[in-house]
Order: sequence, then C-alpha cells, then structure tokens
Amino acid sequence: MAQKFVYFYGNGQAEGRADMKNLLGGKGANLAEMTSIGLPVPPGFTITTEVCTEYYKNNSTYPALLAAEVAANLKEVEKLMGRTFGDPQNPLLVSVRSGARASMPGMMDTILNLGLNDTTVQGIISQSGDERFAYDAYRRFVQMYSDVVMGMDKHVLEHLLEEKKHEKGVHLDTELSASDWKDLVAAFKAAIKEVLGVAFPEEPEAQLWGAISAVFGSWMNQRAITYRRLNNIPAEWGTAVNVQSMVYGNMGDDCATGVAFTRDPSTGENYFYGEYLVNAQGEDVVAGIRTPQPINRAKATVLPPMEEVLPECYKQLASIRDILEKHYKDMQDIEFTIEKGKLFMLQTRNGKRTAPAAIKIAVDMVREGLIDEKTAVLRVAPSQLDQLLHPSLDPKAKKDIIAKGLPASPGAVSGEVIFTADEAEAEAKTGRKVILVRVETSPEDIHGMHAAQGILTARGGMTSHAAVVARGMGKCCVAGCGDIKVDYASQCFTTRNGTVVKRGDIITLDGSLGEVILGEVPTVSPQLTGDFAQLMQWADKYRTMKVRTNADTPHDSKVAREFGAEGIGLCRTEHMFFDAERIAAVREMILSEELEGRELALAKIMPMQKGDFIGIFREMKGLPVTIRLLDPPLHEFLPQEERDIEELSKTMKVPVNAIKHKIESLHEFNPMLGHRGCRLGITYPEVYNMQVRAIMEAACELVKNEGFSIVPEIMIPLIATVKELSVLKQNAVEICDEIIAQYGVKVEYLIGTMIELPRAALTADEIATEAEFFSFGTNDLTQTTFGLSRDDAGKFLPFYVDNGILPEDPFVSLDQAGVGKLVKMACELGRSTRANIKLGICGEHGGDPASVIFCHNIGLDYVSCSPFRVPVARLAAAHAAIAK
Amino acid sequence: MAQKFVYFYGNGQAEGRADMKNLLGGKGANLAEMTSIGLPVPPGFTITTEVCTEYYKNNSTYPALLAAEVAANLKEVEKLMGRTFGDPQNPLLVSVRSGARASMPGMMDTILNLGLNDTTVQGIISQSGDERFAYDAYRRFVQMYSDVVMGMDKHVLEHLLEEKKHEKGVHLDTELSASDWKDLVAAFKAAIKEVLGVAFPEEPEAQLWGAISAVFGSWMNQRAITYRRLNNIPAEWGTAVNVQSMVYGNMGDDCATGVAFTRDPSTGENYFYGEYLVNAQGEDVVAGIRTPQPINRAKATVLPPMEEVLPECYKQLASIRDILEKHYKDMQDIEFTIEKGKLFMLQTRNGKRTAPAAIKIAVDMVREGLIDEKTAVLRVAPSQLDQLLHPSLDPKAKKDIIAKGLPASPGAVSGEVIFTADEAEAEAKTGRKVILVRVETSPEDIHGMHAAQGILTARGGMTSHAAVVARGMGKCCVAGCGDIKVDYASQCFTTRNGTVVKRGDIITLDGSLGEVILGEVPTVSPQLTGDFAQLMQWADKYRTMKVRTNADTPHDSKVAREFGAEGIGLCRTEHMFFDAERIAAVREMILSEELEGRELALAKIMPMQKGDFIGIFREMKGLPVTIRLLDPPLHEFLPQEERDIEELSKTMKVPVNAIKHKIESLHEFNPMLGHRGCRLGITYPEVYNMQVRAIMEAACELVKNEGFSIVPEIMIPLIATVKELSVLKQNAVEICDEIIAQYGVKVEYLIGTMIELPRAALTADEIATEAEFFSFGTNDLTQTTFGLSRDDAGKFLPFYVDNGILPEDPFVSLDQAGVGKLVKMACELGRSTRANIKLGICGEHGGDPASVIFCHNIGLDYVSCSPFRVPVARLAAAHAAIAK
Repeated sequence: MAQKFVYFYGNGQAEGRADMKNLLGGKGANLAEMTSIGLPVPPGFTITTEVCTEYYKNNSTYPALLAAEVAANLKEVEKLMGRTFGDPQNPLLVSVRSGARASMPGMMDTILNLGLNDTTVQGIISQSGDERFAYDAYRRFVQMYSDVVMGMDKHVLEHLLEEKKHEKGVHLDTELSASDWKDLVAAFKAAIKEVLGVAFPEEPEAQLWGAISAVFGSWMNQRAITYRRLNNIPAEWGTAVNVQSMVYGNMGDDCATGVAFTRDPSTGENYFYGEYLVNAQGEDVVAGIRTPQPINRAKATVLPPMEEVLPECYKQLASIRDILEKHYKDMQDIEFTIEKGKLFMLQTRNGKRTAPAAIKIAVDMVREGLIDEKTAVLRVAPSQLDQLLHPSLDPKAKKDIIAKGLPASPGAVSGEVIFTADEAEAEAKTGRKVILVRVETSPEDIHGMHAAQGILTARGGMTSHAAVVARGMGKCCVAGCGDIKVDYASQCFTTRNGTVVKRGDIITLDGSLGEVILGEVPTVSPQLTGDFAQLMQWADKYRTMKVRTNADTPHDSKVAREFGAEGIGLCRTEHMFFDAERIAAVREMILSEELEGRELALAKIMPMQKGDFIGIFREMKGLPVTIRLLDPPLHEFLPQEERDIEELSKTMKVPVNAIKHKIESLHEFNPMLGHRGCRLGITYPEVYNMQVRAIMEAACELVKNEGFSIVPEIMIPLIATVKELSVLKQNAVEICDEIIAQYGVKVEYLIGTMIELPRAALTADEIATEAEFFSFGTNDLTQTTFGLSRDDAGKFLPFYVDNGILPEDPFVSLDQAGVGKLVKMACELGRSTRANIKLGICGEHGGDPASVIFCHNIGLDYVSCSPFRVPVARLAAAHAAIAK
Repeated sequence: MAQKFVYFYGNGQAEGRADMKNLLGGKGANLAEMTSIGLPVPPGFTITTEVCTEYYKNNSTYPALLAAEVAANLKEVEKLMGRTFGDPQNPLLVSVRSGARASMPGMMDTILNLGLNDTTVQGIISQSGDERFAYDAYRRFVQMYSDVVMGMDKHVLEHLLEEKKHEKGVHLDTELSASDWKDLVAAFKAAIKEVLGVAFPEEPEAQLWGAISAVFGSWMNQRAITYRRLNNIPAEWGTAVNVQSMVYGNMGDDCATGVAFTRDPSTGENYFYGEYLVNAQGEDVVAGIRTPQPINRAKATVLPPMEEVLPECYKQLASIRDILEKHYKDMQDIEFTIEKGKLFMLQTRNGKRTAPAAIKIAVDMVREGLIDEKTAVLRVAPSQLDQLLHPSLDPKAKKDIIAKGLPASPGAVSGEVIFTADEAEAEAKTGRKVILVRVETSPEDIHGMHAAQGILTARGGMTSHAAVVARGMGKCCVAGCGDIKVDYASQCFTTRNGTVVKRGDIITLDGSLGEVILGEVPTVSPQLTGDFAQLMQWADKYRTMKVRTNADTPHDSKVAREFGAEGIGLCRTEHMFFDAERIAAVREMILSEELEGRELALAKIMPMQKGDFIGIFREMKGLPVTIRLLDPPLHEFLPQEERDIEELSKTMKVPVNAIKHKIESLHEFNPMLGHRGCRLGITYPEVYNMQVRAIMEAACELVKNEGFSIVPEIMIPLIATVKELSVLKQNAVEICDEIIAQYGVKVEYLIGTMIELPRAALTADEIATEAEFFSFGTNDLTQTTFGLSRDDAGKFLPFYVDNGILPEDPFVSLDQAGVGKLVKMACELGRSTRANIKLGICGEHGGDPASVIFCHNIGLDYVSCSPFRVPVARLAAAHAAIAK
C-alpha cells in the first residue's frame, strides 16, 4: 500500500483518530477524533508528520504524490462547505496551522483567512454582507502571511497602520472603516513589493503551499529548537500541518471566540473554566491584546459572561465539555468559535495544569470513576510536585501589596525586577534571583522566563502566553496586572498608587493570589495533606523501590520522615565536625603530629558524635540509617584567612607558622582527587575507629535502654580497590563486635561502600566480596567519569548545555549513557558476587525523576535524596513501576 | 593416589625433575635433575611447596602422613651415606635449606651441620679425625640454629666468642683451639637456656623438625614478604624444604667451597667464572666475610686459583660446566664443595646476569646452536634493557677517582652518600638521589638498595649479597672496595689516600669499571650496536605490535628513531607554547577579552607552530605522527610570582590588576577536571583552528615542495562525549580540506581522539562514529578511574604500595583490573562501530613491560613511550607475541 500523506475529517467522518498523534500531531488527531464523536468541527485535513520528516530528509522537497492528495482533500472540504477555493463568488477560506506530537504552545506559526485576494474578497463581502469585516480579514491575512511566510519585517506594516490611524485621527483599529482597510491592503502589498522585491501571492494555491512550507520551516526555527531542547523533544518527530475551513468569531455581536478548560487548571476544581471575547478572532484571546471575559456566571466580573450573552451556545459548549471529559478521561483545553450563533470546536487537547490542579483532578477522577488509581498516579508528573514542595508566603508576615493581577501560576517567589529576557538570563547566570516583568510575553522571552524565579505581566489573561508557559514550567506567574504601567525606556514600572519600582528592586509575587508585594516576604513550608496525601498513598501502593533521604541531623530526619522517607541513605558525618564546639577539637586532631595527640582530640569529639547518632536513630524509629564515615580532605577544617589563623593560634596555643605550615602541607592541587575518603581512614585509622565506635555505642545504647530495633549501615567512602575496604572493614568489625559484646545486646550491622569512583564500579565484583551494600555516589561518580569538577565546570558547562553538546547538566539528571552504564555494570557485577547485596543511590540524582526511573529499571533497592525531594522520588518510582 | 609430600634424590636416581620447580622449588628440582644426569650430588630429599601451602592453610600444622614420609626418606639417605642420623659412632649430619619456586637470594634461612649434639660430635671427631673441626662445626650449628629456629639474639653468642678470643689473647676465629670451641658450645647452650628459658634441643629429630618449621616460618617473615612484593611473587607459591646430607669444605687444605657462573654474569663472556675459598664452608663465600679467589688461572690475582691448587677437581668442575650448559641451555649459577679432594655439586640454577650479559649470552647461544631466536628474545627481560639505555660516564669528563672496587653491577650514577638503608629510603622519598655505602650488605638492607641510585660496599666479592642483589635490580654497584674504610659512627668513609667523604657528599660510581669518583660526573648516551642490535632485530622480527614514541621536538624525534620508534604516538603541542619567543604571544591571546585580539595573537604563534611541525615531519620521514591539540588549562601559561606579573604588565602594557584579575578568573579548584583539552577547543575554537592550520600547512608544504609522504593524525584531547568530537572534527575537516585545496596536493589525514576519561571509554562505540583513531591516555585515565591526582597522591600512595593495598603504583604499571578493563572495553566498543579503527596507547605505561604485554593481548596497533623506553617496549612486544 502506498504511503498516505493526508488525512481528512469533516461531517462526522474522519480518517484519523486521537491515538494517531505521532502521525497527525496532537491538534490533527484530536480534530479527527472530535469529528468522529459528532462534535461540530469545521472540515479540513491534516498533512502527516512523516511528510515533515521526509521534507527535511530530502533537502526540503515534498513527496511526489503529496500535491495530488492535498488537491483531492481540498475538493472534499469544498464539497462539504459548498464553497470553492479561489472562487470569486463563494470562496473557501482556510486556516493553516502546525500541530506537533507534543503540544508546543506559541512555538509554531499560524495563518488565518488564507485564500483571500482582490477577487475573492468580493465573494466574502457578498457572503458576509460586511465589507469592513472582509477587508479587515484580508489585511490580517496579508500581515500574517507576509510576516510568517515571506519574512517581511512586521513593523513596516504596523507603521503603515499607525499612520492610517493618525491620518484618520483615530486611536483604535475598530474605528477604521472598510475603505481604510482596503487602502491599507493595497499599501501593505506595495510595501512588501518594495521591501522584499517580490509581489504578495494572489493565487490561493500558491498561498496554500507557501503556508504549508512555512509551517514545516518553523519546525526548524530557533524558538522551536530551543523549546525542543528544553523539553527533550527529538527533532525527528516533525510537525503535521492542519488545513481547515475558516469560521469567524468576528462577524458581529452574534459571533465570539474563546478558550476553556473543562476544569480549573490552576486549582483543579471541577468547574467549567473559560474565557471568551465577543466579535473577535481566536488569536485575539491567546495574544492577550484584549482582556477576555469569563464564560460563566459564577466567575463574571465587569462584562456579562457568555452564559448570559450567548446562552444557547453556552449550553451546547457545556454539554460538549461533558462529552469530551468522558471521552478523553482527562481535563481538556479547548478552543471554540461562534460564527453567527453557531458553535464550532477548533481544538481539544489535554490541558496543562498546575501541580495542585493535577493532583486534585487525578484524585477527583478516580472518585468519579473516570480513571483508576494507576492512571491517576501517572497523571501527575513527578517534577511538578516540586511546585508543591516549595514554600508559600508566611501568612503572619507583613505584606506591602502594591498591585494585584491574575493568579496565573501558583508559588511564592522574591527577586530583583528585570525587564528583558536576555538580562534575566544573564543575571540568573551570575546566581541572582530575578523576576521578569513584561507588558506581555512572547515566545522570544522563553529563555528569560526559564531563568527567572517568577513572571509578572501587565496584560493578558489566564490563558495568555505568559500564563500558559509559566504553568508548564511550574513557575510562579502573576499575569494581566493592569495595576502596573511598565516603562521599558526608564527601566521601571509604576503602580496605580504611584509606587515606582526600578530595575534591581526586590519584589515578591504570590502566584496563588495574584499579589505583587514590595520587598522580600518570608515563606513557610507546604502542607501535604488531603488529595496530595491520597495520591502519594496510591503511589506508594504501586511503587516497589524504596525512597530514603539524605539527612545529617535529627531535624532533617524528622522533616524527611514527614515527607515519607523510608530511611536515611546518606548521613554525612563531616557536617557534624563543623559545629562550633567541635571544630576546635577537630583542628587539634589535625594539628597533632603524633597518634597520641590525635586520639586525645578524637576522644573529645566521640561523645558528641555518639549524641548525633542517638538523635538520628531515635528520629528514624528503626528505619535503616546509612552513615558515611569522614569524607572531605582535612584541609577543609582549617581556616584560610590570616585573622582566623591568628585566632586559632591563640586558642590552640600553636604558633601561627606551625598552623600555616600544616595548611601548606595539606594543600592539594586537585583536592577532589586527593587525600580524602577511605584514604584518610587508611592513613589515620583512629578517625574512622572513633566514628565506628560512636555509631555502635549509640545503636547499642538505644537497643539496650530504649528497646529499639536498629541495623546501622556503616558506609566507607571513596573505595577504589577491594583491599582498601577489606582493611577498613576488618577494623570496623573488630570494634563493632567488641562494643556489642560489651553492651551484651544483639545488634546487627552492615558494612558497605559508596561506589563513587569508576574503578570501584568496574571492579564491583571484587568489592562485593567485602561490601554488604553499595550506595552509588553519583555526584562524584559523574565528576570522575566525565573528568569534570563541579566547582569549575561553570566556565563551560552552561555553554555546553546551551549549545546542545550535552543534553542536560549531568549533575542534575544522571548521564545514563555514560555514568548510568557504569552504575548498571556495577550492579550486575556486585550481584554476581553477592546475590543479595543492597543497592541504592545517594547522589543528588536520587531526587530527579528521570534518574529515579532509571534506578528502578536497573533494579536498585532504593534511591536517597534531599528531604524536599522525597515525594518527587516516591512518585517517580511509582511511575517507573506502573510503566513496567 | 595419595598426595606425595617428599621427593628423594641420590646415587644417580631422583624422584624429581628440573621441570618440577613449582612443587620442589628451584633448588630441589635442580638437585634432583643434577642427580639424574649423573652429577655428584650429596643425597637428600625435598619436602614439597604444597606442604608449605597446607601448613599455612591449616593453622601451622603438617599433613598427617608427612612425618612417616620424612622418616622413610631419611632412612634412604642413611643407607646411601652409610651413616645414621643421631648415631653416636657414625652420625649423619644434614643441611636444611629453603627452596622457593623463584630464586630469592639471601631471603631464606639455612641451617648446616644439623644432627650434632654432645654425643654425635664424638662420632664426627672419629669420622674426621679432627676434633677442632668437629667442635667448630658444632658451635656453628648452635649459633645458626639458635638464631634462626629459636629466635635467640645472635649478638649474645657473638659476644661470648669475642670474650673467649680476648681471654685467649687472639684476634681470629682460626686461632681458637678445639677445647676453646668445646667450651664455647657449652657456654652458648647455657646462655640460650638463660635468655630463652628453654634448653637447646639435643635430640636430632627434634632439631630436624625445628629446622623444617623454621624454613616454612621464614616464608612469612618480613624480608620474604617485602621481596615477594617487590618481585610480584604470590604468597600462595610457598617454599620447599631441602634436607641434604652434609659435605664439608672446611676439613683441611684438600677441601674447598665455591660458587661459579658458567659464563661471566657481568659481561656475558663465554668464560668459566667462579670464586672459591680453601678450607671454608659455603656460607663463608656468599657472606663476604673472607674475600674469595678466582677459580681459574686467567683471572687469578694474589692467591693461586683453584685450577692450580686443586687441578683434578677443577677439571671435573669444568666438564660439569659443559654438561650443565648443554643440559639446561642457559647460563648456570652453581655452588660446589670439595671434601678431601672429592667434588660435590650443591646447587645449580639459571644465573642472574646484567643486561649486557643477558644479551650477549642469548645472542652467543643462538650462534652456538644451543637455543633458537625466539628463546633468545625471551631470555632478556624487557625491564633489564633499562640498564643499557641509561647513560654512562662521559669519557671526556675529568674524573677524580678516589677508590677502586669490583665492577659488581654496571651503570654510572651520582648521588649523596648515605650509610643506612632506612635513611637511604627516607632521603630517596624526598626526591634526593643517594648512594648507599655499607661495609657489606645483608637482606635487611634490600629496601635501601632499592631506593638508592647505586651501592658501594667495602667488603664482599662479585657474588656477595650486594653484588647479586644489585645485578638483579639492575642497580649500579661497586663491591669489595677495600680502598675505603667505613666509619658508621662518624658517618663518613676514608679512602686509602686519606680523602674523607661525609654523609651527604656527592660521589659517582662507575659500576662497569668499579670506580668511585668524588663529585658528580657528566654522562653520555649509550651505544646500542652489536649484540644488542642483533637481539632487537630478532625482537622486531617476531613482534606484531608497533612501537611509537612520545616526542615534541625534532631532536627527540631523531633520538627516538635511533631507538627504533616507528612513528610519534603523542606530540604535545603545549610545550611549544612555552618557548621564550612564543609565551608573550600566548599570554597576549589569553589576556585578550575579544576574539579579534586572540586571533591577532594566534597569528603570531601560527608560523612558529608550523615550523615545529615541519621539523618533526621531516625527522620522521613519512612515519605516522599523532599531534595532540592544546591540552592544559590556560592559567598554566600565566605567571604566578608577583615579580613576573609586574614584568608581564610592563611588556604587555596591561595593568597589573587586569593580569591578576585574569589569573584569578582562571583559577580552578581542580584544574585536572577543569577547563582544558577539547573544552578549550569548544569555547575558544580559534586556538584549535590555528593549530590545525599549522599542522596541515606544514604537511602540505612538505608534500608539495619536498615530495614527502605523510598522513598527519590530529588528536583531540579530553573528549567525554561524541558531540564534542563531532563539533571539533567538523571545524578541523573544513580547515584541512580548504588548505589541501589551496596547496593543490593530495594529503590524507586522520582525526581521532585521546581516550582519557572513563566516559569516553564507556561510550567508545558512539565516539568511534567520529574518531578515526583512539589513543589511550592512560595517565589521565588512571587519575580519573581511581579518582587519584598524580600531583597529590604522594601523601598516601607510597603507604598504599608499602602496605600492599595496591600491588604497584598504578602510574608506573597499568592497573589491568580497573583501568585496563576500561581500555579493553573501549577497544571492543570502538571496533564494533568502526572495524578498522587505529588503536594505540600514549600514556607512560607504553614503556612498562607488563603494560606493553597487556596492550598486545588486547590487540592494540601500537604503544607509544618516551624515546629511551622504545627498545624496552619493542622487546616486551616481542615477548608478548612469542608467548602467544
């Protein structure tokens, strides 16, 4: 069978289906599906994504049979519409839109009213009986087409429009007459000819193919490439092209256009949430030029809702909402147009939503019987939880509210006011927190929105570019804040009450309330109850991999348990050494040249260490706790500043020069690869011996006195060879067994190692002869596998990511092809020697969803991450288990 | 069949064979073999190495059946000798010696005259008719046995001996009478009882088992453990025990004892080389207490040679020499004893020899038809060549010769005089070059000999401990230098002409001439002709892997070609940047904030770089040359010292602060893992572009003007991901093709990468899609795989090696289990993508024999090493090919 390039839909019949998104793109597949289930969709056809792929493969040429297929499908549309493309009397006009597999809001270019020329415009006049409407549509088409297809500088035509208004002494487009628009069409065409040297195409067929090529071309424009990179979308997917007969929301007051969500995308409330504009084209709603109005009575503000203005249409739309939710079993984001009282559906897709909305919708839909628990779990992206796990504004804090806008995307953030995306990106790179403030945002601003903590816009509604993109990114956003007047030239904005906020001033945004607050406001931790707790309970039900936390204090341990941690995967002991009371003893130890002096100093630290462990063990109530013995090089504990050295000299009664000499002798060219980890344990066994003693005495004391059950896991860091581990393990076992005998209790314990050097991974079979568990230290493993110092990579790593040399920062998401391969190899080797070896990961990757899924797939027993990431990891682990 | 623990030999019959060394040890196997081929060997038996292994496995207990086997074999010996162990009239005395699989000179303890007690000594008196001899033998036995078996402090007995001499008013042992020795035996026994609290064993059987246990025990003494570690001998091999009937070289002037080499072990001359002492026991020769005399007329000095003193025995020994060489087809190191005019062979083994001797003997034996070429190649250890490749004293230099000794081990070295092994080791660790000066050396000195550049002893012959061990180590040694008087207390030595040389003074040793020279003497490069050239020609004939060199200059390239290099495997370009004329331009480039400034500076460097490459290409005459693009971080090119910064500020007309700011901004915490290698090429493409241009213009110019054939190999360092390589390769290819077109010549070139990061090795299949060759940079690969900075490891790596945590310094010999595994994996992955990918190694491991053999076995195309190591690598590669 020959390859089919074009899929038709119209009049209740469609060649495509919703599950053909890969071939037809999201928009095309859903237009076909809606047609099939009997919804009113203007007829049209979709050119497949395969054509896009072929197009780029074959040096921007189309498959030979494409032209004939397009012509045949266009005939079908003409038949259904009773109009003919290019016909002077009764012309068919079409829209041409892109439609990729994954929704890419604002990224692709759209052309409306295609098919208009000086002849067919007459047909539209007679069809509509509205000359002004016809010429307005015509000039819109010329503007859009010349911009998108021909590459004309749009400001030239906008300038002509401004001149016309000036000439006519009017301020608004709506004040221009039919003949004004007619003049402008002619002026536009003349300017295009003059600037570009080619005439605006009159022939509708030429217009159509120009538009199709522009859609395919836009797949490779910089915005699209950036978006795909940020969202890990491969270029090979391609886009489809949707050609659809036009319907008009701007033919008068019985016309309208709008967008809606079948539930509230911000809160998840089961409530029909939408906005519309009377007598407007669809692009007007999305672009945020006029601020649209709520569709239903309950949310109505100043202007009447669609429920009152167009009650029949509203009723029809509300019933379509029910049909769509039952059909798709998910919250839908729809676009509609009402042409002279007749409702048309232009799009449906799964709606983007905030994390709280995602959770509420998923849980509600299980209760409503629409979806099952597993589906509900999969409906919430683990990375989205981040939003929920971030703090909100402290309700007890004073707030100097200077403006209010729409609560477009929740969260609470503070930062310096910045007015351009480029500057926002530049400032963020230096580590500053910034709030991007714009009149409105456009796709050109995406990189700045990405870099900013939050976004504030003066114009646009809840479905404006800023709002949609911010929600997708999980960024806090206050949109449509008419209270502020932005002055780019003076680099400031002024509020209604006259407050002037300049570039660099700190403001706080509350995205859940739409508040703009002067200065920084303290925040409080989130409450994770209700629907959130329900969803996490389902996640835990289906998840098989455990989630632990990295915590060094009883307080962190407590927080992590509240977030659902099932143990501690990494308790770093060096942080305990920095405590003010202890650092003196630590320094005394380092400055002692003899073993005896070091042991004396360690004896001072020992009871404090033991206290640390008692506190943590108690907090974890018998859950497993992995304690890493001292890891950093000793010089980290000595002061660097002259003043501090002098002070140390005084308190320690050691000459300044002796301290300086010690500091010098401990200096390392590459401390990351130096005398640290188990290498300290080998050369100064007394340090590890003290720590092991503190751990076991703490455990034995709790077991003996408080009836605890506890199995401490002693982790020896930076092992490169099994011999290191066997020497240190033997020391540790001797001490543990001695203490257990001394306390006369039964305490089991495990001794294992961090796998954080490539050599350890490569020889994991040997190391597993001694190690009872492996914990992958993927931070250091990434550093050594890449030969990349995390502290130094700032000079080139961002460049690498920006230029696609690395798909992502490998310290954020585990490099599965390289580091991940080592981890997998080590798991297999380790299990080949010790079948029941406990395997976990304790690098920061343990809280990154993609990395967690990888860990599940290679069969780790647990991941461990920072307390606030524990729910993210739990959900990601559930996704992995359900997907398998 | 039950396991056999004891092997008998005697009277022309033996249960063992020469090829049973693993079971019987070298000494036992050869005693059996000599017996079988009819040589006069005192009968005896060997307890197998398996008993040693069992002994340690079973908590120091013997197999149940061992005692019966020993008793039965002892009976056989008694029968042949016509004497009975412990018999008062006609007692059998035996020696007990260790004998491991590999020869371990001086490492193991020996006991002679075992079986003596107050009763049997009377039998010996009647057998020998010499009471003094009998009591002398008895006291020697008590001294040795109490020291080795019972752990008695030997100085106590020595002190008694000194007291006796003092009491008698004599100076030499030989002046003491039979009754003096008899008294001393009693006094020794009383002292042993007093000090140790146990009596000296009288029962011969108890003596025998005590001695056997002492031999097995000595396998685990610290000296033996150290030797095994230094020579990579596994502890599991164990030692055998040889029990042999005694013969005496000290029963009068018709007795003698000696050691000989069937050819000269120092030069390899085909000449019977030996030393003997009349009326002496074997240990006297080896211990260097009396200086022995040559056996034959040609070498005779002061005293008459054995050829004249014992002509019949000499003739018999000379014919045995021929028998042994024909039988063993290798140079033999033999020990013999003449008891009352009767010759006995006590040992034969392959003789240790210097590198020149090894080469001459191997080549001569091929000419003599004894061995074939492949065997000859295998007879020379690659590591030995190092001796030959080191410089000798410049013949034109002035030499202040202060003393002459025996040319015990060739070479020419200078260093500070040090008098104890411990200090020699300590000083060497700080990077000092030292000469260890001792009256004589003992096994306790081995670590100091290892650490020293060379060894000078006042006493001992060519077969003394110092001489044998030094030759084994390839260390320069002047032995038996009677011209000097060593005074340990004053830490100096005085020469015959009164020169006093103190600790720390510099001297030079010429081990080939036996000269001791005051001060440091310049050296010259070795000549590698004659037999050496012949051997290398055979090596090249059988070798399959190529050997290249690491060279950055035309001069080094020339040296390396003379050493047989077949191309350059690593030409580092950064060294060229440090040249005085260029560093200014390099700094100008670094200090330029704008691309334009950098390009201007690079344009100055470009013609010089081009000149470098022309010089190297010319020198290599069409052999392949791999050029690595700039690798080190930029801060290495900027000055660090205040003064230098100020000077730079003046010449560059850049403010001091700007330079300091730049230095600061380039500072890295872990420069090894920082902004270097291809990361510079990615962020500053203009640098690599200049280098590629210089390489290709040089190549094209030579091809065009001088008719050269050349295929430059451009190597991009520090690749972690294929994307880095594809970006940089594309740049390079564009430039190369442009230059080739410009010159209008045909020049092929390869673009490849160094594999020096674990991630590159792990993803070598991806990287090979772009790389046309891989060169393994095993220095950096070892650093990243181990997480070990070469610059910082000094604080713990020596401790690791000394304590057996690492078998060897992984920067010297490739860590095959870890780093080697990565290399092997990368080869397999690389070939899976690109079957004909060129594979080589350019780390310093390319000159280490074990690493070279590994490289051959995993199928590399070549190794590359420093010019002086090229012959070592060629020979090692031949060994690998022949062994396969």
